[in-house]
Amino acid sequence: MNNDDLLRPIDGADALTAPLAELNTADAVEYLNALDEAETTALLEALPLPRAVKILEQPELRHASELIAALPAERAAALLGQMADDRATDIFHELDEPDRQRLLWRLSAEARLSIQKLMRYPPNTAGALMTTEFVAVPTDWTVGRTLQYVREVERSRETVYAIYLLDPATRMLEQVVTMRRLITGQPDTPIMDVAQVNPPVGVDPLLDQEEVARLIRRHDLLAIPVVDPTGHILGIVTVDDILDALIAESTEDVQKFGGVEALDKPYMQIGFVEMIRKRAGWLSVLFLGEMLTASAMQHFEDELARAVVLTLFIPLIMSSGGNSGSQATSLVIRALALRELRLRDWWKVALRELPNGVVLGSILGVLAIIRIAVWQNAGLYNYGDHWQLVALTIGAALVGIVTFGSLSGSMLPFILQRLGFDPASASAPFVATLVDVTGLVIYFSIAAAILSGTLL
Amino acid sequence: MNNDDLLRPIDGADALTAPLAELNTADAVEYLNALDEAETTALLEALPLPRAVKILEQPELRHASELIAALPAERAAALLGQMADDRATDIFHELDEPDRQRLLWRLSAEARLSIQKLMRYPPNTAGALMTTEFVAVPTDWTVGRTLQYVREVERSRETVYAIYLLDPATRMLEQVVTMRRLITGQPDTPIMDVAQVNPPVGVDPLLDQEEVARLIRRHDLLAIPVVDPTGHILGIVTVDDILDALIAESTEDVQKFGGVEALDKPYMQIGFVEMIRKRAGWLSVLFLGEMLTASAMQHFEDELARAVVLTLFIPLIMSSGGNSGSQATSLVIRALALRELRLRDWWKVALRELPNGVVLGSILGVLAIIRIAVWQNAGLYNYGDHWQLVALTIGAALVGIVTFGSLSGSMLPFILQRLGFDPASASAPFVATLVDVTGLVIYFSIAAAILSGTLL
Repeated sequence: MNNDDLLRPIDGADALTAPLAELNTADAVEYLNALDEAETTALLEALPLPRAVKILEQPELRHASELIAALPAERAAALLGQMADDRATDIFHELDEPDRQRLLWRLSAEARLSIQKLMRYPPNTAGALMTTEFVAVPTDWTVGRTLQYVREVERSRETVYAIYLLDPATRMLEQVVTMRRLITGQPDTPIMDVAQVNPPVGVDPLLDQEEVARLIRRHDLLAIPVVDPTGHILGIVTVDDILDALIAESTEDVQKFGGVEALDKPYMQIGFVEMIRKRAGWLSVLFLGEMLTASAMQHFEDELARAVVLTLFIPLIMSSGGNSGSQATSLVIRALALRELRLRDWWKVALRELPNGVVLGSILGVLAIIRIAVWQNAGLYNYGDHWQLVALTIGAALVGIVTFGSLSGSMLPFILQRLGFDPASASAPFVATLVDVTGLVIYFSIAAAILSGTLL
Repeated sequence: MNNDDLLRPIDGADALTAPLAELNTADAVEYLNALDEAETTALLEALPLPRAVKILEQPELRHASELIAALPAERAAALLGQMADDRATDIFHELDEPDRQRLLWRLSAEARLSIQKLMRYPPNTAGALMTTEFVAVPTDWTVGRTLQYVREVERSRETVYAIYLLDPATRMLEQVVTMRRLITGQPDTPIMDVAQVNPPVGVDPLLDQEEVARLIRRHDLLAIPVVDPTGHILGIVTVDDILDALIAESTEDVQKFGGVEALDKPYMQIGFVEMIRKRAGWLSVLFLGEMLTASAMQHFEDELARAVVLTLFIPLIMSSGGNSGSQATSLVIRALALRELRLRDWWKVALRELPNGVVLGSILGVLAIIRIAVWQNAGLYNYGDHWQLVALTIGAALVGIVTFGSLSGSMLPFILQRLGFDPASASAPFVATLVDVTGLVIYFSIAAAILSGTLL
C-alpha cells in the first residue's frame, strides 16, 4: 500500500465517528443505514480504513455501490482493494459503467484481475459467489511449514479453516486439510498424512448456488473449492456466502410462488414504478389466461340463464380447485428443490395425487352437500325442486375439480423443470388460473350430465 | 470406553461393508437410504463404530430412530454415546418412550444428562439446536496453553474454531477467541489479548432458530453461544445446524404459503392418511370460509337473474383480486421475516399498497375494457345494448378489487403477527378466500351503481 496518507482518518474525524466507536460491525451498519447518503459517505471517509472495509463488506449495508461512487476515487479504490474480492465484485456489478472503469483502473493489478475474473461469472453461480482469497500449499510441505505459512497470510484470507493442497508440478487440486487436523498434527509430519482420506468435493464455477449449498450441507463443509475442468482450483465458496445465498433464494422462492418477479431489494427500497413493473407483468399474463374463463362461461350461457342456482357455487368450486392445486404445487416445488424427488419420479407423484385428490374432493363434496341440505331444510334458501340433484352436482364437481387441481398442481413443477425452467416458477396464482378454466368446464359438464332433463 | 469388545466389527463384517469402503459419508448415507431396514441395521452393526457414528450423524439418513431401535441395545447405546449430542437428542426425540428409556439408561451419566437437558428445550429453539460439545477455557490462560488444550479435546468437540473464555471464578462467559487469532498469537501471550474487542453475541436458549440464524449471519459467525440469564454458557449453535434449520424453515414457509400444514418429512415418505390430514384441515377451513361467496351470491340473486352478462366475469374479477393479494402477501411475509419491516411499519406498507393496487387494478381494468370492446365490435360476442356500461362496470370493479386485494394481502401478515401468529401462516389460498367474498360485494355494488336503471 503506497498511499498511506490517504488512508489515515481525516481531521475532525474523531468527532464524526464517535457514535460508531462503541458499536460492533453489524450495529454500525444499522446505524449507517439510518443516515442519508452524504452523512454515510462522510463517515466512510473519516473512519479508519480497516473499519470502513469491514462495514462495506456487510451485504446488509444499503446502497453500498452508490456510497462507493460518491467517495473520492482514491479512497473508494483503497476500500475496494482491501475488501474481500467476492464482495468487491458484488459492488462492481452494481456500479454504472463509467464509475466501474474509473475505479477498476485505480486498483492494484492483482485486485483488478481477480475482480474482472469474478465479474465474468453469471450471478447465482459458484463462480460469482466464490472468493479467490483462500490458502493453498504444495502437497510436499510439512504440517509445521503449512501452519507457519497460514500464520503469515491469515489476514488476507477469507477463511483459513480449510487448506487446499496442490500438486507441486501441475498445481492441480489434490487434497484438503482442515485446520483442526493441522493443529493436532506434529510439525514434521508430511501435510498429506493429515489430509482427508476421500478426494475433495469440488464444484464447477457455473454450478447454481442452490446446488452449491446442497453440497456444502451434504458434506458438512465450511468452504467448498471451485475447480475448473482441468482440475485447477479457481476459488472457494464459504459457508457464510451460502447462508446469504440461501436466504436470498428462499425470499425469491416465496415471492415467485406468490406470483411476483423476484424483487432483489428490500420491499421499502423498491421504487413505485419498479414495483408496478415487477407485479404487473405476471398479473397481466394471469389475467389474460383467466379471460378464458369468460369465454368458457359464454359457452355455457344458456345453462347459466336457465339455472341461476348453478352460478351461486362457481366461486366456491373454483377456489377449491385452486387451493388444492396450490397445496400440491408447494409440496412438489420443495421436494424437487431438496432433491427428494427427481424428474423421473413424476408418475409416482401422479399416482399419489390422484387418490389424494379424490379423498380431499370427497371431503369438500360432503361438506357442500350438507350445507345445501341444511340451508334447504332450515328454509334459509330455496335451491328449487331439484335441490337434491343440485347438491349432487356440486358434490361431484368438487371431487372432479379438486382431483384435477391436485394432479395438475403437482405436475406443473415437473413440466416446468422438463422445459428447462425453474420449477419454483409454478406460482399459486398460476396454478389457480390453470385450474379455473378447466374447472368451469368440468363443473358445467357434470351439471349437464346430472341435471339435463330437469333444470337444464 | 469400557466395552471395547462390543465396538469391534463382528465376524464376516468385511464382506458386508465392502460396498461402503470407497464411499464418503454423504454417499454412504445415500447408499443406506436405498436399502431396507434389516439390511441397513446389519450394516450399522458391522461397520467400525466411528464410521457408523458419522453416518448416523447425518440428518439425511432416513428412519435413523427406527434403525437405532432395531439395533441391539448395547450397540445402539455405544453409537448414541459417541454421536454429537445435538444429533443424538434429535434421535431420542423420535424414539418411542420405551425405547427411549431403555437406551437412555445405557448411556454414560455424562451423555445421559446432556441429552436429557437438551431434550427439555422446545423444538426449533436455540436450546434444541445447540451442542454442549464446545471448547471453553478460563480467561487467565495463555495462547499456548489454550492451543495445547484444544489439541487434546479436539476429537470430542463439534467445532474448535471458536473458543469461549470463562471467568475463572464465576464461570460466566467473558469473551470469544477465534482459532484464526489463536494460531497467529504468541504462545506466552495471555489469551484475553487475542480475544475479540466486542463482547460476545449470545442467545437465550428459548430463542427461535430463525432469529439465531439471523444473528449468526449478521455477525458472520461459525457458531453462536447459548447463554442462560445468569451469563453461563449452556452450549453453542454451529453454522451447519443453522443451514439445516434454514432449509427446513424455508420448506415450511413455502408449504404454509401453499396452504398445507408443514410436512416435517420428505414428500414420498408421508403416509396416505397423514397427507390427507395435513391438507384436509386447511382445505376445509378455506372451503367453509369460501361458502360465504355462495351466501353473497344468493344475496345478489335478482341481479344475477336480470343480468347474466355479469356472471361471465365473476371468475376473472375474483381471481385478479386473489392474485394481487397473493403477490402483496408474499412480499410482506418475506420482508417481515428478514426484518426489513417491523410491525410498526404497517401504515407505511398500506400507504404503498394503496396506490400500487390502484395502478395495477387500472392496468387490468383497461385490458378488460379493451377485450369487451374488441369482442363486441368484432361480433365475437354480444354483451347487449349497454355493453359500454358493462365494460365500465368490469373495469371499475377490477380497480376496486385489485386495490382491496393488495391492501388486505399486505395487511394480513401484520395482523397475524400482531395476534401472535407466524406471519408466514398467511397463505395464498387464505388471502384468495378473504378477497373472494369481499370482491363479490364490491363487484355487485359497483354494478348496482353503474347499471341501475339500465340492466339492473
